[in-house]
Amino acid sequence: MRLGTVVRGSQASTVASVDGATLHDISDYAGPDGLAGLLRSVDVDDIIGIDLARYPVVAEAAVRWLPPVPAPSKIFCVGLNFSTHAAEVLADVSDHPTLFTRFSSTFVGHRQPLLRPTVSDTLDWEGEVAVVIGRGGRNIPAADALAHVAGYTVMGENSIREWQLHSKQATAGKNFDGTGSWGPWIVTRDEIPDPAALEIVTELNGVQVQHGTLADLVFDVGSIIEYISTFTQLAPGDVIATGTPAGIGHRQDPPRYLKPGDTLTIRIPGFVELTNDVADPPA
Amino acid sequence: MRLGTVVRGSQASTVASVDGATLHDISDYAGPDGLAGLLRSVDVDDIIGIDLARYPVVAEAAVRWLPPVPAPSKIFCVGLNFSTHAAEVLADVSDHPTLFTRFSSTFVGHRQPLLRPTVSDTLDWEGEVAVVIGRGGRNIPAADALAHVAGYTVMGENSIREWQLHSKQATAGKNFDGTGSWGPWIVTRDEIPDPAALEIVTELNGVQVQHGTLADLVFDVGSIIEYISTFTQLAPGDVIATGTPAGIGHRQDPPRYLKPGDTLTIRIPGFVELTNDVADPPA
Repeated sequence: MRLGTVVRGSQASTVASVDGATLHDISDYAGPDGLAGLLRSVDVDDIIGIDLARYPVVAEAAVRWLPPVPAPSKIFCVGLNFSTHAAEVLADVSDHPTLFTRFSSTFVGHRQPLLRPTVSDTLDWEGEVAVVIGRGGRNIPAADALAHVAGYTVMGENSIREWQLHSKQATAGKNFDGTGSWGPWIVTRDEIPDPAALEIVTELNGVQVQHGTLADLVFDVGSIIEYISTFTQLAPGDVIATGTPAGIGHRQDPPRYLKPGDTLTIRIPGFVELTNDVADPPA
Repeated sequence: MRLGTVVRGSQASTVASVDGATLHDISDYAGPDGLAGLLRSVDVDDIIGIDLARYPVVAEAAVRWLPPVPAPSKIFCVGLNFSTHAAEVLADVSDHPTLFTRFSSTFVGHRQPLLRPTVSDTLDWEGEVAVVIGRGGRNIPAADALAHVAGYTVMGENSIREWQLHSKQATAGKNFDGTGSWGPWIVTRDEIPDPAALEIVTELNGVQVQHGTLADLVFDVGSIIEYISTFTQLAPGDVIATGTPAGIGHRQDPPRYLKPGDTLTIRIPGFVELTNDVADPPA
């Protein structure tokens, strides 16, 4: 099943789909706290079991996509988790996951414009697979971790390279409002028994610029969840971006950054595809 | 005026005080979203103007302290912002603020135990002045920034040194649940017209281990707010820790880390004092 969040009229609505094409509004089932609230109250297996035919169909053209969980309590990103990418940015792979965080305000939904900052023209793409937590927990062993996952999705974990390099901490370059995106759908874990089999593809204006397979991650999904949950309680709806493969614009010669009019498409082939145009911020 | 949050019975209550000794429960004034909600709805000048005599007095012994804003939307910390501290950790001062983030779950309130992790005995103190945002905004010029501050307080921005050094990003070592503290009071900005005049003192078991003056910050409060608000919309209740002076335990010879039974006290002399004992996590 696929799970997401859209705006209908002025109201955020929780939507579900079997094929990603027909949207059912399951807000009555999800309750007032939306998808995060639903994940807090029931197991993903229960959600998978509902009869979508009982819920109204809504036309995709009539809705505006939000990130599947609009305001997760925590968003972690793993840096340097493909050795190909670590090599292109001349960084060492560390013995432990390299983590930074993003605020939910840095993300827009599917088909919403990515905002190139006015203070820098170095907005760069980073296509990634993201994991959404279903069952929270602390001190989760890697071997049990996939049972804590609600599902998988795609993230444009884009960066303002110039600001990322202002200091040794990535925070500023990773947290410009509206510069990333994720969704449109969380594909529930029953459809993806082994995330290592997932591919991640990034296209700029229809041309492939990044390709990776999660089998090549330095730290796999289970290890990442184990590491993070050693220091913090993971909660339903929390998001972990697993890292980007080689092919960022910053390392093209000359560098190629995103600019208004570009279209960025990121997909897990066979599962989910995210598309955003790039625009200047509203004046 | 001093503003904070406590638990009375099972309910979070917003409290205010003139002298930090007599607590008035102003929850009826603050509304259901507590201090963050109050800061969203009215200007600090309005809060300062209320007649505390109209609100019930509560005994401090009957309450449990929470951080003044229990769940800010954003918590930023500035690293390496005293040149004395940058020198002791052999780091360069960068041309721009070094920023990382902490989740609200990493903080406990005044007089609540700081939790030394089971996986590492390298919990280290970092006494800091923290700024709480009153009026939100984006692209706030440094010259206007102090008008966006609700007030100032103290933070134990403590670190798990071993985990901080796991990779180049500080996230893991800064985000163990329950390892930091802040409060008990936000001292409103009218009492502190110039934050550069503030001193910060850290004591371990009554012995001073850190001392700094905000006049010595590499990046002053206004510059930090300008920098952060260039990339993100600051919101009422957001918190910014301004950095720690020299004197951390990690650089003592031999290193001295916090252990159960220790008492950590951090103060802005004349304004606010925060005390926490150190304990093992509950089994």
